[in-house]
Parts: sequence; C-alpha cells; structure tokens
Amino acid sequence: MLDRVRAFADAEITPRSDYFDSLPEAPTVATARLHEAGLANWWIPSRYGGIGADLEESVDIVSELAYGDAGFAFGSFLSILGTTMLRLCGEEPLARTHLEALAAGGGSCGILASEEQAGSELGRIAARFTHDGDQVVISGDKYFATNADAADLLLAVARDADDDADFRVVLVPRDTPGVEIVKRWDMVGMRGSATYQARLRDCAVPAAHVLRGNGLRNLEIGLNASRILIAATAIGLARRVRDLSMEYAAVKQVKGSALTGNAVFAGKLGQIEMLIDVMRNQCRAAAAEFDRYMAAPDPLPSLYRTGTLRSALAAKMYCGQAGWQVATIGSEMFGGLGYTHDHPIGKLVRDLRYVGLVEGGDDVVRDLLYSRFVVPAGKRR
Amino acid sequence: MLDRVRAFADAEITPRSDYFDSLPEAPTVATARLHEAGLANWWIPSRYGGIGADLEESVDIVSELAYGDAGFAFGSFLSILGTTMLRLCGEEPLARTHLEALAAGGGSCGILASEEQAGSELGRIAARFTHDGDQVVISGDKYFATNADAADLLLAVARDADDDADFRVVLVPRDTPGVEIVKRWDMVGMRGSATYQARLRDCAVPAAHVLRGNGLRNLEIGLNASRILIAATAIGLARRVRDLSMEYAAVKQVKGSALTGNAVFAGKLGQIEMLIDVMRNQCRAAAAEFDRYMAAPDPLPSLYRTGTLRSALAAKMYCGQAGWQVATIGSEMFGGLGYTHDHPIGKLVRDLRYVGLVEGGDDVVRDLLYSRFVVPAGKRR
Amino acid sequence: MLDRVRAFADAEITPRSDYFDSLPEAPTVATARLHEAGLANWWIPSRYGGIGADLEESVDIVSELAYGDAGFAFGSFLSILGTTMLRLCGEEPLARTHLEALAAGGGSCGILASEEQAGSELGRIAARFTHDGDQVVISGDKYFATNADAADLLLAVARDADDDADFRVVLVPRDTPGVEIVKRWDMVGMRGSATYQARLRDCAVPAAHVLRGNGLRNLEIGLNASRILIAATAIGLARRVRDLSMEYAAVKQVKGSALTGNAVFAGKLGQIEMLIDVMRNQCRAAAAEFDRYMAAPDPLPSLYRTGTLRSALAAKMYCGQAGWQVATIGSEMFGGLGYTHDHPIGKLVRDLRYVGLVEGGDDVVRDLLYSRFVVPAGKRR
Amino acid sequence: MLDRVRAFADAEITPRSDYFDSLPEAPTVATARLHEAGLANWWIPSRYGGIGADLEESVDIVSELAYGDAGFAFGSFLSILGTTMLRLCGEEPLARTHLEALAAGGGSCGILASEEQAGSELGRIAARFTHDGDQVVISGDKYFATNADAADLLLAVARDADDDADFRVVLVPRDTPGVEIVKRWDMVGMRGSATYQARLRDCAVPAAHVLRGNGLRNLEIGLNASRILIAATAIGLARRVRDLSMEYAAVKQVKGSALTGNAVFAGKLGQIEMLIDVMRNQCRAAAAEFDRYMAAPDPLPSLYRTGTLRSALAAKMYCGQAGWQVATIGSEMFGGLGYTHDHPIGKLVRDLRYVGLVEGGDDVVRDLLYSRFVVPAGKRR
Repeated sequence: MLDRVRAFADAEITPRSDYFDSLPEAPTVATARLHEAGLANWWIPSRYGGIGADLEESVDIVSELAYGDAGFAFGSFLSILGTTMLRLCGEEPLARTHLEALAAGGGSCGILASEEQAGSELGRIAARFTHDGDQVVISGDKYFATNADAADLLLAVARDADDDADFRVVLVPRDTPGVEIVKRWDMVGMRGSATYQARLRDCAVPAAHVLRGNGLRNLEIGLNASRILIAATAIGLARRVRDLSMEYAAVKQVKGSALTGNAVFAGKLGQIEMLIDVMRNQCRAAAAEFDRYMAAPDPLPSLYRTGTLRSALAAKMYCGQAGWQVATIGSEMFGGLGYTHDHPIGKLVRDLRYVGLVEGGDDVVRDLLYSRFVVPAGKRR
Repeated sequence: MLDRVRAFADAEITPRSDYFDSLPEAPTVATARLHEAGLANWWIPSRYGGIGADLEESVDIVSELAYGDAGFAFGSFLSILGTTMLRLCGEEPLARTHLEALAAGGGSCGILASEEQAGSELGRIAARFTHDGDQVVISGDKYFATNADAADLLLAVARDADDDADFRVVLVPRDTPGVEIVKRWDMVGMRGSATYQARLRDCAVPAAHVLRGNGLRNLEIGLNASRILIAATAIGLARRVRDLSMEYAAVKQVKGSALTGNAVFAGKLGQIEMLIDVMRNQCRAAAAEFDRYMAAPDPLPSLYRTGTLRSALAAKMYCGQAGWQVATIGSEMFGGLGYTHDHPIGKLVRDLRYVGLVEGGDDVVRDLLYSRFVVPAGKRR
Repeated sequence: MLDRVRAFADAEITPRSDYFDSLPEAPTVATARLHEAGLANWWIPSRYGGIGADLEESVDIVSELAYGDAGFAFGSFLSILGTTMLRLCGEEPLARTHLEALAAGGGSCGILASEEQAGSELGRIAARFTHDGDQVVISGDKYFATNADAADLLLAVARDADDDADFRVVLVPRDTPGVEIVKRWDMVGMRGSATYQARLRDCAVPAAHVLRGNGLRNLEIGLNASRILIAATAIGLARRVRDLSMEYAAVKQVKGSALTGNAVFAGKLGQIEMLIDVMRNQCRAAAAEFDRYMAAPDPLPSLYRTGTLRSALAAKMYCGQAGWQVATIGSEMFGGLGYTHDHPIGKLVRDLRYVGLVEGGDDVVRDLLYSRFVVPAGKRR
Repeated sequence: MLDRVRAFADAEITPRSDYFDSLPEAPTVATARLHEAGLANWWIPSRYGGIGADLEESVDIVSELAYGDAGFAFGSFLSILGTTMLRLCGEEPLARTHLEALAAGGGSCGILASEEQAGSELGRIAARFTHDGDQVVISGDKYFATNADAADLLLAVARDADDDADFRVVLVPRDTPGVEIVKRWDMVGMRGSATYQARLRDCAVPAAHVLRGNGLRNLEIGLNASRILIAATAIGLARRVRDLSMEYAAVKQVKGSALTGNAVFAGKLGQIEMLIDVMRNQCRAAAAEFDRYMAAPDPLPSLYRTGTLRSALAAKMYCGQAGWQVATIGSEMFGGLGYTHDHPIGKLVRDLRYVGLVEGGDDVVRDLLYSRFVVPAGKRR
C-alpha cells in the first residue's frame, strides 16, 4: 500500500508543485487519478468497500502524499474527519450509504463547523436547525470549509433552534437546495487544497441525517483523526526540505568544498533528521492510540469519555512547532535563490505554517492540554 | 523630516500593500512621488544638493517607509550602498556628477556584485575588466541586482583581467551599450522592490569610472550603510505587525472578552514591543558609529582599517532574528484568516524573511563576527 | 575610570570566582578594596563627594565587574536604586547626609520592598507605618533584600496605616532598634552578593525620613537605574563565557584540528558576539535615556509622568533572554568537564539566570510593556 | 512492576532530594533498598535470574525513578550499557557469571571508555592492552566513569598495543590489582550519581575477558540502551517540574486570582504537557525498536550492521532539547524563591542539563545523524 502511494506521489504529485501552488480548480485531476489508482479514501473500512487502512498506516501515507504536495494530501485525507463521525455516530443505514459511496466513487466529505465568530471556540456556533415533521431545516454561515464545493456530502454543526445548548452534526448532501458557496479562500499556502466560505439557507434534510449525540463532542472525537494527519503532513514537508537541501548541497561550493562536507550544514541536517524522527514517532503513537479505541466492538462510549486525545493534541502542536523549526532552517538554506519562486522552499515554508494554525492554534491546544490533562491531577502521567 | 516621511508613507504607501505585493512594474509611481515630495535619496550630502540626513536619522526614515511597504523602502534606500562607495572612493568629479544627478533627479544606483557562484563569497566573482586605452571594458554575469533596470548608474564589481587578485568597483552608466537585463526575479517577498539578473557584455566606460582602492573592501565599507538600513526595515515591519494585532484584538472576542484583555495576547505584544525597542536601539547605535566615521575630514583611511563594522553586522543579524520571531508570533495571531490573502500578515512574514538573507545570511555574518572580532583577542570588547 | 575598574576586576575579582560562589560572609573584603580603590558607589554625584559617573558609563563599569563576578557587581551597584530615590525624593538635608556618608564610607543602601505575598505585585505590600508625633513607626516582613544586613541605611516601602492606598518610602537607618535579619537566602547563583529576609518591628524614625511622593512610583523611578545595571551584568557574564570558550578552543582538538577552526564552534561564537553587541547597545541607550531625564534641573516631574522607561524594561528583559541564550550555548560548550565544578561555566549559567528573574520576571515586564506602551496607541513608536 | 517502582520512588527517593543533591557517598542506602525491593538491574534477562523487563518498559521505570531523583535513576540504570555489551558480545560463561551476580547481588557495572583527549571522539582512546600468555594486561587513564568505584565489574575500552586500529572491550573486575580511582567528580547536577576519574595500571585479566568484536562498535550498540534511558530521565524530571508548578500555582495569587486560572501559566503548562507526551512517545518508540533487535535469536549480526539507532540518537537529542525547554520555563516559574535552594527547581534545572551532554553532546549527535542517516540517501525515510 505504502509503496503504491509513494509511486503515485512520485509520478503524479511531486513533479507538479507549481501547479498545486497555483490554487488550481478543485478537485484537480490528481484527485481523480488517486481514485483510479485505487487509493482514494484509503481509511474507509473494508465492510464499506474501502481499503481499511488504519490511522497508524495513514500517517505514513499522508507523509508520502505531503512530500509531493501538502495541499493535495490535506484535500485527500480531510474527509476522515467526517467519515469518522459518520461511522461512529451515524445510524448504520445512513453511514453505509455514504461510506460505500465515498469508497466506490472517491468523492469527499466536507465539514461545516467554523464560523466567523466561532473559530477556535465552537461553543459560539450560531448555525441553527429546526424540526419540521420528519425533516430538519438548517441555516447558517460557515467560514472555513475545505473541499466543500466538490464534496458529495457535508457534515454541518448547528444548534437546535429550540434548545440553545443542543449542538448536533447534520449530514447535508452537497446537492441539497440552499447549499451555497460564498467564495473560495485565497490561501497563503496549501493551495493544492480548496477551502471555502459557505452558506446554508433553509436546507431541508431527513431527520435521520442528524447524527447521534452531542455535536461538539462528536466533532472533538473526529478531530483526533484529522489532527493526527495534519501533523503527519509536516513529516512529509520536512522530508522534502531535507532532500532539497541535500540536492542543493551536492552542487553548492562553500570555501572551496562541497556544502555537504560543511559542519554547519551537517548540523542543520542532523537537527532536521531528529525532528523528522520525533514527528513520525509522535504521530504514529497518537494514531496507534486512536486505532486501539476504534478497534473496540463499540468504540463510542470510551471515545465519548475521552473526547480529544492528549497524544493527538500533542502531535498536532509538536509537528506544528517542529515543522516551523524546519521551515525556518530551510528558508535560510538556499541563499538568495531560496527567496525567489524559482526554488520550491518558499512554498514549503508557507505550507508548513498551516500545521500550527488549522483545527486549533497552539494557544487553543495548550489550553486544552492544560484544562483536560494537567488540571485534573488524576489524568497526569 | 521624519514627520514628512511618515505622512508620505501614510498617504502613498501603507494603503497600497496589495499593489506593492503584486510585483508591480518598476519603478512604481510611488518612487516618483517620493521624489516630488523632496524625499528621494535623503542621505545625499547637501554639498551635492541632497538633504544630507545622517544614517542614524535614516534608521527612523526607513522604519517609517517599511511600515508602509518594506519592498518600497528597500528600493528607496538601497542606492546608499553605491552612493557611499562613490562618495568615499570615486574621484570628486565623478562623484559630484552622479551624486548631484541622483539628488536632483531622484534616480537610483544599482550594484552588480553577486554572481551565481559568488553569493556570500565575493572572492569568487568572475566578472572581469580589461584596460583599453583610457577606457576599461567590463563583462560578466550578475545574479541579484536590485533596481538594476531603472537605475541611472550601476556599480559593478569585477577583477582586473590582468591581475586575478585585483578587484575593482567600476561605475557603469545604465545606458552603456552591453548592459542587459536577463530577467526580473519573482521574489517571495519584498515584491515592491525590483531585483534582476543582469549581464555586462563588453561595456566600455572611461578609466576614471574605476573607483579607487580594493573593490571588495570598498563594497564592505558601503555594506555597513545598507546592512543597517536593511535591519531597520524589520523595525517598521514589526511595528506594523504590532499595530495590526491591536486592531484585530480590539474587535476579536475570546472567552467572552476582548482579546486586548487576554493575558497570553498581552504577553505576545509585550515581547514584540521589547524586540522593537531593542532593534531600534541597535540600528541607531550602529548608524551612529558609522556616522562618526563619516564625519571625519577624510573617512576613508579609518574605514579601510575597520572594514565591516561589528555593530552593523550585529544589527542586520539581530534584526533578522528578532524580526523572524515577530513574524512567527504574527503568523499565529490572526487565526485562519491570517492564513489567507485577505489579511496582510502573510505578506509581512514574507517580507520579514529577507532581513536574515540579503547582504549576508546569518551563517556568513556569524563567520565574519567570529573571524574579525572574536579570534583577534585585541578586538574583543 | 573604566580602565581602573577593569584593572580592579582583573586583580581582585576575576581570580576569586570560587570564593564568591561560596556564599562568603558579607560584605566581602573585596567591597572594602573597591572603596579603597576609590571606586565604590561610583554614581554618587560629585556635589555629594562622589565620582558622579552617569548611568551610561555605569553600564560598562558593571559589565567589567560582572566579568569578574556578577554577584559582586550586583552587591556593588544595587545601592543605586536607593540613592536614586533619595536624591530625587528625599529632602535635601536627608539626602545630603546619607549620600555624603555613602560616598565617603563606601557603604551600601538596602531596599525593603518585596514581601512573601508581594513579589511582582507591589500593590499587595502589607508593611505599615503610623505617625507618632514627629516620628513614624514602621513594621513589616520583607522577603528579598540584598545587602540589608551590612547596609548603612534601608529604604522601606510601606502603607500608611491610616490610608491603605498611601504607599511611602521610609528611610530606616540600619541600626534602628527593631530592624531584624531573619535569614540570609541560600541563592542558586549570584552568591557573591548577600540577600536577606528581614523584619521591621516598630522601628521609629523621624518623620522627615519619609520620602516625598507616592512610594510605588518612587520605586518605579528608581528601578529604571537598577534594572538597566542588572541587564548590564549579562554583558559581562556573556563576555566571560565567550573568552572561556576561546581559551578552551585553543587547546581542544576536534577531528584533528583545533576547535577554534571548527565552523560550528565559530558559528556559536559569532552568535554570542552579536548578542553581546546588542545587549551593550540596548543598555547604553536605556541608560542614556535615563541620564537625559536626570540631567534636567528638576528631573522629578518628568520622571513622575514617565515612571518606568520602556527602554529600561526592554533592556532587562532582552538581556535576560539573550543572556540565557548565551548560558545555553555555554553550558553545551565544554563537554563533560563543563558539567563539573572544575569548570566555571556552571556558575556563569546560574548567575545568568537571575537577570530574567529579579526586579520583575519576564511575564511581569511583558505585561508592563503592553499596558504602558502598547495599549495607549499614542505611546507606541 | 511499574507500580512497585512508583511506590518505591515515592517512599525512598522523592522525599530525599536534598540528600541526593549533596553528592552523598556512593552507593547510597537507596541503592541497597532498590535491591531489597527486588527492583535492581530490572532489565537483566530472567535466564540469568533477573526480572527481564524490556527497554520499552524501562523507559517508564526510569521516568518514575527520575521523578524522584534523576541522579539516582542514572546510577541505577547505567549498568545496562555494560550488561548489554556483555550479553551480546561476551562468551556465554563470562556473561552468565557476571549477569547472574548482578541480578542476585544488585551490584553495578561501570564503563571505562572516555578519556581526557577522547570525549566524543572515542577513536582517540589511548588506553592499551597487551597479550601476555592467556592473559591480557590493560593500562590507561579514564575520564568519566559513573559507578566505577562501587561497581562489581568494569568494561574498559582499549586498543591492542600490537594493532593500533583494534579496539576491544575488556571486562575488568573492580578488585583487579591496578584499578585506581583518581577522584570523584564534583558534578553540577545529577549529584545522586557518582562519577569518577579512574586509572588502570597493568591490570591483568584472563584473555577470555576480552569481548568479541570491534570494541567501538560494541560500545555503540550498547549506547543505544543507555542513551534511550538517559533520554527517559528527562520525562521524569519534566513531570516533576509540572507537578511542582501545579502545587505552587494552587496557593499563589496573581492579580487577585489563583495562578492556576492564569492564561499565561496555563499556556506554559500546556506546552510542558505536550513536551512530556512527545518525549515519552519518542523514548518508547526507540526502545521498542531496540527491543525488536534484541528479540531476534541472534541479535548481534543485525545490530552490528545497524550500529547506533537513529531513533535512539533522536530520543537523546530531542529529550535534551525538550528537557531544557522545560528547565527554562521552570526556572522562571517560581519567582525569587525559585532562585534559592529553598525550592527544588534549581536542582531540576541542573539535572536536566545533563541529558544533552552525556554520551554525545548535541553537536556530536547531529553529526552522527547526518553522516549515518542523511548522507546515505538509501537510509533516509
């Protein structure tokens, strides 16, 4: 599996950095190729017709895709947030229908959660749904929604209009009347993915599309998977910086010798190699922990008790910080050329920046780690 | 003077960030406006018809211009490298002619020093000149040359074809036959300035256009001025990050209160304010030291002995590092919005990156500080 | 002056690191020697019989003394906090009496400000004084008071028992009945200075010993001087780390060559040299700013308006951070030997730690910078 | 097992920080208690009468012991370096004799490798052995040797006097005539362990005491185990800093509220918690990798091919850096009190420093990572 992913990335992704960086129309042809190669949505369980790779394996898959283009990787794996919620909290017929479709068709699932006034504080979500017979009708403005335009289905977080404290996740097929794309964001990096501002205007869906349980808790559970894979993109990006540095050093002369023999250069690469190893092990450990939860006959109760995993938070925060350390080293590595678009390092730096920003900036994650795992003395370890 | 610069930046530069970031055709109309406002080339001595601001004052001028757009500031002050060499090492008639023209016309002076194989190691420069009667004929490929296309004059560094060890600075009027612009670089940041790859093909100029003294040493002396002003751009950029943060915090709510009252936010801004103060004082101290040299009746002998100033190297390296710290804090400050081109922080981060890269990356500067000021025990202080 | 200080440090201080690190009885004989050399309390104005060095010069003096031993330097300059308050806020007869005595006798002035529950928040000070005829009677427990045991006089901060909001600085001669030393602190570093826990029990002093004006504001004004000199100790300590590194490198072989020729080592020393230069320029700039205030015929009104100087806060915070960077590099420089007490680096690391801790930790300073100089938009620059 | 270790540390180690910090005579009574509790040398395989914990489990054991006292932990686990070499490279009778004795008696095994001129460059070792019938006679001066005085046996690295390039590990029983302790080092931290300078003067041992294979390679293999456990001490130390911070914050008031509710404090603790999680996962992953090698029927050939593990190097370097980050945060956490010996943080900072210094400083480790795992493109991952 991993070999096939690597081969795919080598052939289809890595040579097309400039293309992915151009904010190409979404989905790109590479998304179709990934599906043709039998690799799309690789984590969907085999009982739904998918490949059924676990999250630990997904870490390496994402690292390989992100080595080619982190934006493409992000767009390719982000559906895992929705499919995880759907698998765990959707009624089986609903889950089956949509997971089989995603496995068979290679499509995607977008998340409509963040709002302009509810970025890191999802408790401020203003989107609302009302019950109308055996339907629910949902409305709201959503701020950052990756893949939302081309997705087959959207999972929207909203409050019950009759109970302000009752947040729910509602499955909204993309073609539901009232789903509008307001604009595509012109992102600083990760431009191989497509993120949108979206609006729901009185979108009516069957009441069975409302997922079980507290919507914010469902989201928190699903974010474990996506945060770990966001972290994993930093591994691929850092490996790319390393390899580009070695290519450059092989031909660059400093004080009459190849840069590869320079002690300062060696020290930088040694530091990067350490960071790569630690990022990978942290992502794998977090993924393995999540896989252990998911391997239970009924994972939901224990995941509800746990909510966000310490290891997943730590993975995302650590890889954001380590990735930025690599970005900083990398951005100084290639001299003046590295400050031009003739060299890919500028793109890698911009891409690396996102790891510490999406799905909880470092301040938010530190706060979560503190309140969930440090304040309760019994949770410390 | 400083008030006029600030008013100019407020009116003409700061509101046009997107324009400057678009790699606009050079010189921009803002360059003409700067001259109309009587502010272009503000450091040219009054005896040549200029304003005669000293370098210490220039630090604040550059901070104000860079607050608006660092690329514009860079394009506006970089001629100081050439004019300093011309003043110090050119024969008086040559210096007078060109400095008066720059003061009167508001034009610019480009430097042709770096080559593809001679970035930080100028001793590897391959450009050559030959003597031909009372002319010299100069040829070579130059890699990074800011303002080179629109400049009135170029100062090129080349070796004497008859003496490999004899580097000289040669004044080449821009309209000299054989001066070719190979391409304009598509820079990652500082896109309000214009940097080119250029070629000299048998450009013949009068022998009097060869500046006195060792070309590399002349360059080193002139770099004191430009490095200090490059450092000063980081002050302006950091001030802009600070002010944007305060604007954002005034309207952003966190946990039910304005972000301005958040202790973590306050801590970040307090750190930035400290960095701004230290950057400014370092730049001013370095500039004042250079001004003291320049105030001597004949500054050249002592500048020859000194070469590169420790304080100028420290200013550039420190402001690069402090500026990057501000860039890092800033790039995490504005949530998802800060990762889109709807917010200017992305541009400021890209602009801040250049301080540590141009005119000697940190590794080069550390090496210079070590070999010049640490190894000779008598130079330590 | 500076040459004499350097000679004094070379002869009396630098060779006795182990002695100063042993928490020697205070005052040490070196304090007497400093006075014999005519150098004690060098900042006391000549009109009181002192040398009258300004604060800018004091930065270099402190750097030289701290090169020898930072604890000795601290003990030697810390009286400046009290003498500054006395000069500015004491009635002239009171100021004259005590400043002349300090100039003539080389004694010291301790500050009784911090309390166990009032470390960084001086507004929580619980010490109180009452009026009793033409006397005031002062009582309270004070936590960290350097030089308090051997001082000639103490300046204590307390509230008026009749007005909880009225803080005052009261001059308490050391031999006043009721002044008790509770214990000497066993400090981690700076062990060449002596810091005490002290108690005032119904200490009666003439009412004229109460300094004019708000006690907390007086303290804030005086802290400008001491914070800048605390910052300056980091310069001396960093210079010592640099010079020890060069001594070590001259005899240490790595891969068959002297360590002095190693590029990684050179890079570390280049970084340290930069930090030294920036620390010095920041301290000098802050000191020059304070000197400008003090040069006014009546400095108090403008100092009252200004309170704590941004540059002084920035100096202390920056030198604390830069010093710790040097400490970190230094502590990795000397291999296993550097982790033993056979090498002085361990002491230098411990000494360097104090810069960021005393007279306002970094969190406190960041908060001050934010609330005083960033929130009021008009104060930004 | 882990519960028993934790109970042991709670009862015997953690309350005695000051004692361990006093450079107590070695071995301390706690070492005997650890053996009485059946916990000494916990990694010795059960076939030799030991407990047979694997290295992954040892990571948590060491974290618990180091929470109590890192020096005690270090002294307790460091024999693993020697026992690993003995197990892998000693003839079975030799290995059996000594491993059984260590399991039964709870004694220790010292390593005589580093020399004054051969710290990080073991290829410069000057100690030599000669063959004398069925004995070898070994001589040399060794610089840093933990546990060497009280050890049952020493493993010394020396060259064959007849073949300068032939390094061997030789087992020297501690009571062999000619083994001399030159001095005990007065360490900056980790003072609960005992490290010595030692000398071998014509120590004669049976030729069977020479371990198979290249001595430097044997050492490199064994260092995998000890480096991972050195890294693991940082986990325990960081957990202690965290818990002390929470204890302090529970009673410390800032601006009228408990410090536990302060956002800046929360952010620091969140960062520390992240670092703890990442350190643990890196150590466990490296240990699990080593355990996989050791689980092979004959681990030696594959370990010989591999030598030093990337993950073990990364663990030690990462935990050194992350630990120092925790030390830096911690040293600023407790105000003035934290700068006195009345609070344990100073000791924890000193202890944390060693992780980045022993068994290869960061520069050495970066160089190894670069030359072994980055330069050979096929080894990159």
